[in-house]
Amino acid sequence: MFSKQQQKYVQSLQIKKYRQEHQRFLVEGAKSVVELLAADFEIELLLCTEKFFIENEKKLKKISVEQISQSELEKLGTLQSNDAALAVVKMRENGFLMADEKEFVLILDDIRDPGNLGTILRIADWYGIKKVVCSLNTVDFYNPKVISASMGSFTRIKAYYSEISKYIENIDKIKNIEIIGTFLSSENVHHFDFPPSGYIVLGNESNGISDEVEKFITKKITIPRFGQAESLNVGIATAVVLDNLKRRE
Amino acid sequence: MFSKQQQKYVQSLQIKKYRQEHQRFLVEGAKSVVELLAADFEIELLLCTEKFFIENEKKLKKISVEQISQSELEKLGTLQSNDAALAVVKMRENGFLMADEKEFVLILDDIRDPGNLGTILRIADWYGIKKVVCSLNTVDFYNPKVISASMGSFTRIKAYYSEISKYIENIDKIKNIEIIGTFLSSENVHHFDFPPSGYIVLGNESNGISDEVEKFITKKITIPRFGQAESLNVGIATAVVLDNLKRRE
Repeated sequence: MFSKQQQKYVQSLQIKKYRQEHQRFLVEGAKSVVELLAADFEIELLLCTEKFFIENEKKLKKISVEQISQSELEKLGTLQSNDAALAVVKMRENGFLMADEKEFVLILDDIRDPGNLGTILRIADWYGIKKVVCSLNTVDFYNPKVISASMGSFTRIKAYYSEISKYIENIDKIKNIEIIGTFLSSENVHHFDFPPSGYIVLGNESNGISDEVEKFITKKITIPRFGQAESLNVGIATAVVLDNLKRRE
Repeated sequence: MFSKQQQKYVQSLQIKKYRQEHQRFLVEGAKSVVELLAADFEIELLLCTEKFFIENEKKLKKISVEQISQSELEKLGTLQSNDAALAVVKMRENGFLMADEKEFVLILDDIRDPGNLGTILRIADWYGIKKVVCSLNTVDFYNPKVISASMGSFTRIKAYYSEISKYIENIDKIKNIEIIGTFLSSENVHHFDFPPSGYIVLGNESNGISDEVEKFITKKITIPRFGQAESLNVGIATAVVLDNLKRRE
């Protein structure tokens, strides 16, 4: 049986403070849990419907599983509709990271919306980016809405949280680096010659890249506008920049 | 004074049936209403806070305006937070439309999510697209969430609703046309030679382009994947395809 105390524990993981205290996070819904089962995470507990259990039985052998109803799943988790599964998962220790030769790393300068961060992870994963550095005010990578919007890509992307200016100062001491940022009227990304490796900074939804981080940008690029919309959403901008980066490969 | 009956009328416009009956729709929030005031729409009634009124007084001269509180605005409209304005606006008669020479038109094959449709309109507007043809199962252009997500671009994009296969049969009789669709393994859009004008079909969020519409596609393209995410959201795909189209200009 699934005790009241266990229920409270699972529900508490919707909140960052408790995720950090327990070093656990929630993964919800069929698509995300199936991707989780295929990845190398330590699953503390899997709660799922009978249907999900039958469909995935082979993958569940070494996992502690409890079968519960759809309405119980929805009560414990954050999804409005979840007829599949919810997992309690041990966080990874994501330590310091930087771009290898021929690699690009995303730097997220205060991405506040969990849907946007999840979408950025999904796009990064599509374009083969494996690492993101997040400012301390960027929404928590393990927020259930981030996990959900990433559509499984959270399993393949490493995130490191740091004060961006300190991070850049530190890596710049190790080797000369290129830091690319998107601004409203700089070099047209269609004609921009991307370096072989480096960092791409994506700014806050309302304010763009902060003045503090702008000082470190070595190349400013612009997504050209052909019509009249005032701006593009940060997820859209990420996709367009990465598509322009990768078309040279 | 703003009567109970007027309140009911405004609230009813949240629902498609009443929007169609009255041929009116809602525009909410500062950004959207400011864009509306700059465009050529007939505004039946503008409800706004005193602050919004003072900031925009010059633009409001020929409009019927009532000043109400933030909490009243939020009660009447769909936004969780609206400290600015809500307008009741007459729908435009968006009749039949097709691509001119050197123009591209988007065809939306069952886009169900209002946030996605609004985002597509915003992206289309950024890339200079002026017309979209929507399948009859595509979410209503005048849905308040579509209007809101379009960030003002609803003022610059014309939409025409039609059964897609009939629409394509009809325009194909007028002149030979190119109909481009995005699929999972076709020609790499990075190497695709876009024709000078035509139609770009975007498929449903879950099922992509329907079999019925696929029959009419003359060119199949693919956004190349460099990592492991299974798919891209339809708004992201729209942006990447349009960026590839426009880079030739």
